[in-house]
Amino acid sequence: MNKPEVPDFLRNIRIVLARPSHPGNIGSAARAMKTMGLSQLWLVSPKQFPSAEADTLASGAVDLLQSAHVVETLGEALSGVTVAAAMTSRRRELTAPLAVPRELAPELVARAEGGEQVALVFGNETFGLSIEEVELCNRLVTIPGNPAYFSLNLAMAVQVMTYELFSHVGLGVEHLKSEGLAATSDEVEGFCGHLEQTMAHIGYFERRNSERLMRRMRTLFNRAGLLREEIDILRGFCKQVMRAADGHVPPDKS
Amino acid sequence: MNKPEVPDFLRNIRIVLARPSHPGNIGSAARAMKTMGLSQLWLVSPKQFPSAEADTLASGAVDLLQSAHVVETLGEALSGVTVAAAMTSRRRELTAPLAVPRELAPELVARAEGGEQVALVFGNETFGLSIEEVELCNRLVTIPGNPAYFSLNLAMAVQVMTYELFSHVGLGVEHLKSEGLAATSDEVEGFCGHLEQTMAHIGYFERRNSERLMRRMRTLFNRAGLLREEIDILRGFCKQVMRAADGHVPPDKS
Repeated sequence: MNKPEVPDFLRNIRIVLARPSHPGNIGSAARAMKTMGLSQLWLVSPKQFPSAEADTLASGAVDLLQSAHVVETLGEALSGVTVAAAMTSRRRELTAPLAVPRELAPELVARAEGGEQVALVFGNETFGLSIEEVELCNRLVTIPGNPAYFSLNLAMAVQVMTYELFSHVGLGVEHLKSEGLAATSDEVEGFCGHLEQTMAHIGYFERRNSERLMRRMRTLFNRAGLLREEIDILRGFCKQVMRAADGHVPPDKS
Repeated sequence: MNKPEVPDFLRNIRIVLARPSHPGNIGSAARAMKTMGLSQLWLVSPKQFPSAEADTLASGAVDLLQSAHVVETLGEALSGVTVAAAMTSRRRELTAPLAVPRELAPELVARAEGGEQVALVFGNETFGLSIEEVELCNRLVTIPGNPAYFSLNLAMAVQVMTYELFSHVGLGVEHLKSEGLAATSDEVEGFCGHLEQTMAHIGYFERRNSERLMRRMRTLFNRAGLLREEIDILRGFCKQVMRAADGHVPPDKS
């Protein structure tokens, strides 16, 4: 199977970093974004940019840094945006309702797919987003976690959010899966029949409840999610058991 | 609302790092784990541990490093484990079916809640898990992402997986939400009635279709998810509009 390509509409999702202090975080955020198929990085008054440290940490995503939009204010970064989601981990009063990423992601992806520009807005590493910055946004998102210890680095937060978005894009991991290997139920049933014959042939059912035993075996092999090649091995083994029981045992070469 | 506590059964989920090369990644992984409520870190033949770099990057999660289990082989790290999920981003032949984190997480959480020990197994930064290591596991997981550029640092992968697990634990962000602020539908309806009176009072409906206008207004304010305090402000404004229309205008102090 060929590698699928990420859909073009992901260009409609921008990651906005407001006043980031550490250039390394900008680089790591770019890497996180590109890994999840995003490309549009906006930087609002970064303390230091461009920077060699950002380039190093971006690794193969340095192209996102080169095409990053650097602006003075969050308002400029949200130009043309219909839905701007402010990332926060603080309790805030009287603004938009607070959503977890999984609640919001389907809407953001659907809007981007429909041609709207959407933004995820991340605040400064130490201070988060200011009240004024949050007020420019129309969604509030918080990543759930351990209430007693919540320490999510800026780039980690970008990774989690972009992972969550990507998981709603519908681009699975089919290209990584082995193809056509799972056995069908008739193949599993065929093997179970073969196993039953074999067990009968070698006298395994004597003084045992064959029906009950086979029911357990069927349950086991149905649950196991047998692959076709595994069935070939097991049936080959059954055949050899019967031959051996009939006296046809080849010399042991082990 | 008090901060909820992470449930005890999360102690039944262990993160296993097989042959990690960089002590910094061990520290960052500990921080990622603790942020998502996990505590059981197992290290299989780490290249360097303990280390000052790991402690620094663990930040407030250095307790996880101090209580980490350091063992020689993956087999030891999986002792007592019923479900071991191998993290992989490579196409692998003839093993368990490949799942994405979201497919597997509910089972892992349910088993941990039921008292079973489960493990997420991460390979070396450069080489991933060996075939022999994967064969000790009974699940295969891969994090979906950009097929053309997939560059997920070890600690980032731990963060994504532990976020995914935590999101199935059912500990939401209720403690961060403002309480009792959303207006009820009768409060919204009350305000819409007030608005209609006001519009009528100032002659806004002349030569206009009042029914259609009010239907649009109702749709808007129902969609907006009005907060109680916002209704107070809007109703105060309506009152003042009526007063002003009746000639009761206080001097403009702006």
